[in-house]
Amino acid sequence: MFSATQLSGRAKRAGGQPISRLMTLALADPTLISLAAGFVDQQTLPVEITAQAMEQVLSDPAEARATLQYGTTLGDARLRQQVLDRLRHADGNPEAERKLSIDQVVLTAGSNQLLYLVADALLDPGDIVLCATPTYFVFLGVLDNLSARAWGIATDAEGIIPAAIDEQLRHLERRGELGRVKAIYVTSYFDNPTSVTLSAPRRAELVKLVERWSRTSKIYLIEDAAYRPLRYAGDDLPSLRSYDTTGETVIAAETFSKSFAPGIRVGWGILPPALVEPVASLKGNFDFGSPHLNQRLMSAVLEMGLLEEHIARLKSGYQRKLAAMLAAADAFLTDIPGVHWRHPSGGLYVWLVLPPGLNAGMEGALWKRALAEHVMYVPGEFCFASKGHPVERNTMRLSFGVQQPDRIHDGIEALSRAIRQVLADGG
Amino acid sequence: MFSATQLSGRAKRAGGQPISRLMTLALADPTLISLAAGFVDQQTLPVEITAQAMEQVLSDPAEARATLQYGTTLGDARLRQQVLDRLRHADGNPEAERKLSIDQVVLTAGSNQLLYLVADALLDPGDIVLCATPTYFVFLGVLDNLSARAWGIATDAEGIIPAAIDEQLRHLERRGELGRVKAIYVTSYFDNPTSVTLSAPRRAELVKLVERWSRTSKIYLIEDAAYRPLRYAGDDLPSLRSYDTTGETVIAAETFSKSFAPGIRVGWGILPPALVEPVASLKGNFDFGSPHLNQRLMSAVLEMGLLEEHIARLKSGYQRKLAAMLAAADAFLTDIPGVHWRHPSGGLYVWLVLPPGLNAGMEGALWKRALAEHVMYVPGEFCFASKGHPVERNTMRLSFGVQQPDRIHDGIEALSRAIRQVLADGG
Repeated sequence: MFSATQLSGRAKRAGGQPISRLMTLALADPTLISLAAGFVDQQTLPVEITAQAMEQVLSDPAEARATLQYGTTLGDARLRQQVLDRLRHADGNPEAERKLSIDQVVLTAGSNQLLYLVADALLDPGDIVLCATPTYFVFLGVLDNLSARAWGIATDAEGIIPAAIDEQLRHLERRGELGRVKAIYVTSYFDNPTSVTLSAPRRAELVKLVERWSRTSKIYLIEDAAYRPLRYAGDDLPSLRSYDTTGETVIAAETFSKSFAPGIRVGWGILPPALVEPVASLKGNFDFGSPHLNQRLMSAVLEMGLLEEHIARLKSGYQRKLAAMLAAADAFLTDIPGVHWRHPSGGLYVWLVLPPGLNAGMEGALWKRALAEHVMYVPGEFCFASKGHPVERNTMRLSFGVQQPDRIHDGIEALSRAIRQVLADGG
Repeated sequence: MFSATQLSGRAKRAGGQPISRLMTLALADPTLISLAAGFVDQQTLPVEITAQAMEQVLSDPAEARATLQYGTTLGDARLRQQVLDRLRHADGNPEAERKLSIDQVVLTAGSNQLLYLVADALLDPGDIVLCATPTYFVFLGVLDNLSARAWGIATDAEGIIPAAIDEQLRHLERRGELGRVKAIYVTSYFDNPTSVTLSAPRRAELVKLVERWSRTSKIYLIEDAAYRPLRYAGDDLPSLRSYDTTGETVIAAETFSKSFAPGIRVGWGILPPALVEPVASLKGNFDFGSPHLNQRLMSAVLEMGLLEEHIARLKSGYQRKLAAMLAAADAFLTDIPGVHWRHPSGGLYVWLVLPPGLNAGMEGALWKRALAEHVMYVPGEFCFASKGHPVERNTMRLSFGVQQPDRIHDGIEALSRAIRQVLADGG
């Protein structure tokens, strides 16, 4: 009787996030060991600290009432100052960061909303973003939703390869498409999905490269530093942002979702001045600004000095889980020819590479076999841009954040059975 | 040295929200009495209730940990059930609402995000939304941001006029543009800016009218019920949604921002089944779902039965302020020929109509004169769609929510001085 709904072009392209399909599968089988979800370890979530900080936030009636009122679109000024101070401290206060002002800080619903806002501010349909290969698949979904084009750039143990970016940009220039390149997206610490950290020399090189290529048409460098606090070995590196001496090139995204609690959803961005007004305007239309209460809560957590001890506790938990995953991999996967993985020094993921030709994707035999063994992973194929560097289907992302060590052990053992069986069946 | 930033088309059109310009002006003059901001009364914000409910949410460690984890994109199932139960109770449980399922409820960052999501899901550039005249200016800004076209429809004391919609749709049909009409936007209770409530007969008529016009191309009815709980006189009316017996026509938006606290930012939508997946996908890209903690907090407030007493307290406060504004208007404005206003029975606004020809807009003499008298209002011109019913610049929105009664009194007195002066100067 009624005519069909005519969705917008954007809505038609919005359904591409593969993780929701995986979550539906996970919920349907309660015996399943999911090594797929990028959730944080529920056991370590900071209940007492949250209660303590919330009490502080609500203790002074006048302050508490202000907290329950609308905030501003950019967010609570005290928290913006605090995240800026923390960044300066972490980066050793180089010249580039002394120039930063809180007017460039916007508080968002997780770092993901910052990525969405920046993409929406910069990208018209057909515009181009260069990404590492592999890269964060949720951001690929966002680009697809905006009808932008993602181009994959080769990576190695030091992260995205500047020479490969250079080559790609030259290629696009020859095609007359350099003007469509709006940004390069880089996860600078323990990236999702490979846990690789961009090396210090590459950071310096990348900023210079992007500045050089921006002479005719502006290209931004989007730094996703969501996993920076989750380092288990080695020394912290200064942010990619700290190499941006002009302050006009790097867009930095961070979040308390991984280092504190995703259920509070406070992230932030540090924006080049030219992007502050456009991002604030878009955010004004989206939600009038993120919840004031949550921002004041995180501000109190920082003020009371409760974040560092929590991160220390978190890290020791994740280190134990990472060790469990690596031990299980050593025990169950080492003797399968062609299977290898890196030892991450931070983050939440182990990137597993299978023999060439073994398809770990959702259309392949391994996916079904693994589900039959009650174990789930994120197929690596989701993490590849559709253009540029080819898709490597013999890969998968394994998360060690959610499951307890014994379940990680059992999950890797089940995965090993599945891989062996598929290989025995001829791939 | 660097080339200029190339913003997206959307970002270029996102700066149109006039309220941010007003807020900047208000901040610049601390002696200003702002009758512009649609904020809620800060004095009545529920600090104790929030503290009590938060304690409850965090009291059980396992539940508290789950609360601090990511939630789902649609939101907490318990709160979705609660808002549905409340709607059924408020509407007297008609047939149409028994059929509703929590799968159709999505929790958002205020009702505003729901409006944005629905607009983004339905509207391609050039698509048409019919709106009351005047209407909620923030939504007009959203439509403009999406390059959609807003058409103003005449209203009277019962709200938007169905015959005028009918006429407009026939006109668009003749122009071959009926297929571009995606929705009619209606604030069903104490609308922003006029405080008019859509009458019961109009509710029934509107749903039928939209169903009739949807035979060839689907048209939705967007019901913004943000102010429903703020009724100071008369009996509640069943929602527009409750007249939608098929469940496929009305999109309903509500919020706890006005009835509880905007700083917590929990709103929700009830969606026709065809829109659930598209809206959830878009929201997944925006923010992965709104903060779980805030949803559990509001769920506890409801479960503990703390909302009703708070609303009762709120209403008595706003009633006092409304009375102060009406008394001041009687005292200072009655004797100015051609000035008139309605007596609202709910909401937060008084809509003031000035003599024809007196321009209350930002380009007119009154605006500058009022600022010189340290009083600010929202120029009515912002509340008119650019097409359809003509803009009436001799209008303004006055908010009584924020200021205390003595400041309301002083503000109206100052406004009266400004109006008299401009009239004496010849308009």
